[in-house]
Amino acid sequence: MTPQSSQHGSPLPGLPEPDPQTGAAVKAADRAHVFHSWSAQDLIDPLAVAGAQGSYFWDYEGNRFLDFSSGLVFTNIGYQHPKVVAAIQEQAGKLATFAPAFAVEARSEAARLIAERTPGDLDKIFFTNGGAEAVENAVRMARVHTGRTKVLSAYRSYHGSTAAAINLTGDPRRWASDNGSAGVVRFWAPFLYRTPFYAENEAQECERALAHLESTIAYEGPQAVAAIILETIPGTAGIMTPPPGYLQGVREICDRYGIVFILDEVMAGFGRAGTWFAADLYDVVPDLMTFAKGVNSGYVPLGGVAISGKIAETFAKRPYPGGLTYSGHPLACAAAVATLRVMEEEGVVENAARLGAEVVEPELRRLAERHPSVGEVRGVGMFWALDLVKDRETHEPLVPYNATGEANAPMAAFGAAAKKRGLWPFINMNRTHVVPPCTVTEEELKEGFAALDEALTVADEHTV
Amino acid sequence: MTPQSSQHGSPLPGLPEPDPQTGAAVKAADRAHVFHSWSAQDLIDPLAVAGAQGSYFWDYEGNRFLDFSSGLVFTNIGYQHPKVVAAIQEQAGKLATFAPAFAVEARSEAARLIAERTPGDLDKIFFTNGGAEAVENAVRMARVHTGRTKVLSAYRSYHGSTAAAINLTGDPRRWASDNGSAGVVRFWAPFLYRTPFYAENEAQECERALAHLESTIAYEGPQAVAAIILETIPGTAGIMTPPPGYLQGVREICDRYGIVFILDEVMAGFGRAGTWFAADLYDVVPDLMTFAKGVNSGYVPLGGVAISGKIAETFAKRPYPGGLTYSGHPLACAAAVATLRVMEEEGVVENAARLGAEVVEPELRRLAERHPSVGEVRGVGMFWALDLVKDRETHEPLVPYNATGEANAPMAAFGAAAKKRGLWPFINMNRTHVVPPCTVTEEELKEGFAALDEALTVADEHTV
Repeated sequence: MTPQSSQHGSPLPGLPEPDPQTGAAVKAADRAHVFHSWSAQDLIDPLAVAGAQGSYFWDYEGNRFLDFSSGLVFTNIGYQHPKVVAAIQEQAGKLATFAPAFAVEARSEAARLIAERTPGDLDKIFFTNGGAEAVENAVRMARVHTGRTKVLSAYRSYHGSTAAAINLTGDPRRWASDNGSAGVVRFWAPFLYRTPFYAENEAQECERALAHLESTIAYEGPQAVAAIILETIPGTAGIMTPPPGYLQGVREICDRYGIVFILDEVMAGFGRAGTWFAADLYDVVPDLMTFAKGVNSGYVPLGGVAISGKIAETFAKRPYPGGLTYSGHPLACAAAVATLRVMEEEGVVENAARLGAEVVEPELRRLAERHPSVGEVRGVGMFWALDLVKDRETHEPLVPYNATGEANAPMAAFGAAAKKRGLWPFINMNRTHVVPPCTVTEEELKEGFAALDEALTVADEHTV
Repeated sequence: MTPQSSQHGSPLPGLPEPDPQTGAAVKAADRAHVFHSWSAQDLIDPLAVAGAQGSYFWDYEGNRFLDFSSGLVFTNIGYQHPKVVAAIQEQAGKLATFAPAFAVEARSEAARLIAERTPGDLDKIFFTNGGAEAVENAVRMARVHTGRTKVLSAYRSYHGSTAAAINLTGDPRRWASDNGSAGVVRFWAPFLYRTPFYAENEAQECERALAHLESTIAYEGPQAVAAIILETIPGTAGIMTPPPGYLQGVREICDRYGIVFILDEVMAGFGRAGTWFAADLYDVVPDLMTFAKGVNSGYVPLGGVAISGKIAETFAKRPYPGGLTYSGHPLACAAAVATLRVMEEEGVVENAARLGAEVVEPELRRLAERHPSVGEVRGVGMFWALDLVKDRETHEPLVPYNATGEANAPMAAFGAAAKKRGLWPFINMNRTHVVPPCTVTEEELKEGFAALDEALTVADEHTV
């Protein structure tokens, strides 16, 4: 039943025979009936994908791609891991679905294994279907727990596309859904390369960012602020690893004013940063932590909130006013249990940390030396960004903020060049992110960097 | 791999050996780590479920329950249907997950099969993980399409628990998350048994409800109203089948003022009402239709919005400003494809319609004759409510609106009596809903009604 999955981890098989006829049918039905996320429906041309294995996927025409995007940064264990596939198949045969008000083995075990790995006393797990719903519920918990309304979030962030989550989001995807953003206050987080604070070094950036946050709270009224939400390391917004001391500083501010500290680890969690959670890197424990994606590599939709004892206590005798039909879905939870076991057994987190430090960082720094379009290399673990610029002196981005069409042509040309060389890149605005599966091998990384090297020469043509 | 599923549809096997030790471990881990929806965490006592098949599930102690709730009204084809289980297993082995920007066979096929069944020109499908996200996206589509902000929704409704969806919800679950409800206007929908309009018959209720809606629009300013959202047949709020002409009347009002008509079929759709969609019963075509639950019987989390040509056109050249990582998840879509085929092959929709008319309705009317606690019997297909009352003359509910603790004791006693007799009921406030799988047999229904008959004697004790 799983002929492909048995080949995981071994040398890639020859691709299956091309099947352009099926590919054309898949594409035709897609164009007729599938409405795609974040897209002008007539201006897209979705690639029809035939299969995937480990760090690769292929189309119906016989083209194979090395996936440096991990889907949308979720296949932390790669595609079609045989043990997780088998666990899904087994749970499907046993109990595919069950309502949330019951105790179910896969649900209990997933919660236990996640709670074992989350920092501090984040020991109760509320399951959702994905990251947006996790953020929605974390915000609701914080508001009910504090009896306050305002939530502070950062520009240069993404928290999901449901109403509360999108209003907390600090990128252009919010604008169309920005209905006054009741209760949302945005602030600037540290980002030395494009410093909002005219800082000259990390320490100064950190100090000024904390002062800015505390001033913002003072002028909003601390007694009105329910929560501060931050991605531990902002993901799609640019993988800005926070300066040492920043997250601890935010933790202290939260403690000073009785504000709930929410860390969003939807993208950064479960191995991506080379640790179970990015919070571990900074030795900080939030009151609520949201997760999704890597928890089961997206094999079945799953997200959730890890809840501290203090906040769980608020809902011990008082009903928690939120829920969903598929909370703790057995199939999704079984995939999480298997994923966490695989990550443990195969040292996936350690692989991300080691190859991140020993291969990705030095390779990216070498690329930066050779390519004038690379303004900055940032990241950790298997979570890296190349900030592409027109001008290394001024840091002017290769394309303007939120560019489309002609204005975005340099990034489009870069992306096309990468794909032509068999590399599927993650691209957002003027950045390409290097976010392959955490199971990636050194050989795969080197193959990817060779393609990236060639594609960057295309970006270089647009520098001053 | 699927020993239980081969027995689907045949006489139930003897239960597996009780295994209280495993049950205790599952329960202990649940209590330690699982945070449950809509609950005071220390005041609940979740039953540990060992398995399920067809219309039944069982615990670790050797107790079996006939599920008259279909989970949370989502297992329209019952538990562990072997063909859907096999389809999930096959897709897991082939391609469990893939990012939303690509064309994928299961995604294309699910969209095609759904579009084939949706009424009118609702031919483009935007997939989500569940119903709440479907509502979030339908509302966003309507707002962007019209350039207007206000959305009208009904009291006595449920649309999901994310921020936009919960603010549109007309039941007490909204209150804790009701942050001013920017852009939401609530109105009263028709419900003759508890008429908001002092009507004496269905025709009058319908006429007055439409006048009330149109007056509300006039006073809100029609040019500011983006959408009206209604559950075609309100579900958890009480299965109030709309009077003839009401939904067509709303359709006309929407057309008159350029308002987008959204029908929420998350609970009513995919066979529940004895038709593919409840809208089919009323011969009405909305501009957007939300779905989830029955689309794949909840075997894998999936929801979506079916989009008319007119609204799809708005996003042909202009990006749709919404999306999610797992939109069109291959595993969820494969489960939908298999579910729709099974429903077609096995006549599941027809079964719901036939047994609803020939068995459920007459049986419920017989129960109503015998039990003074039954105030009204309402429904269609496999979607029925018993409105329980203290007093048949005044229609005073058996328990007050949103009652808890002692005030809710009569309903709690009724529920406990049903469970003791092996029937798992769906209970909301003063109502019990009869919502078994659409695959239920006549024998199972009769077994359930015998248990319900006994449990209603407990409710009768609380009548005047």
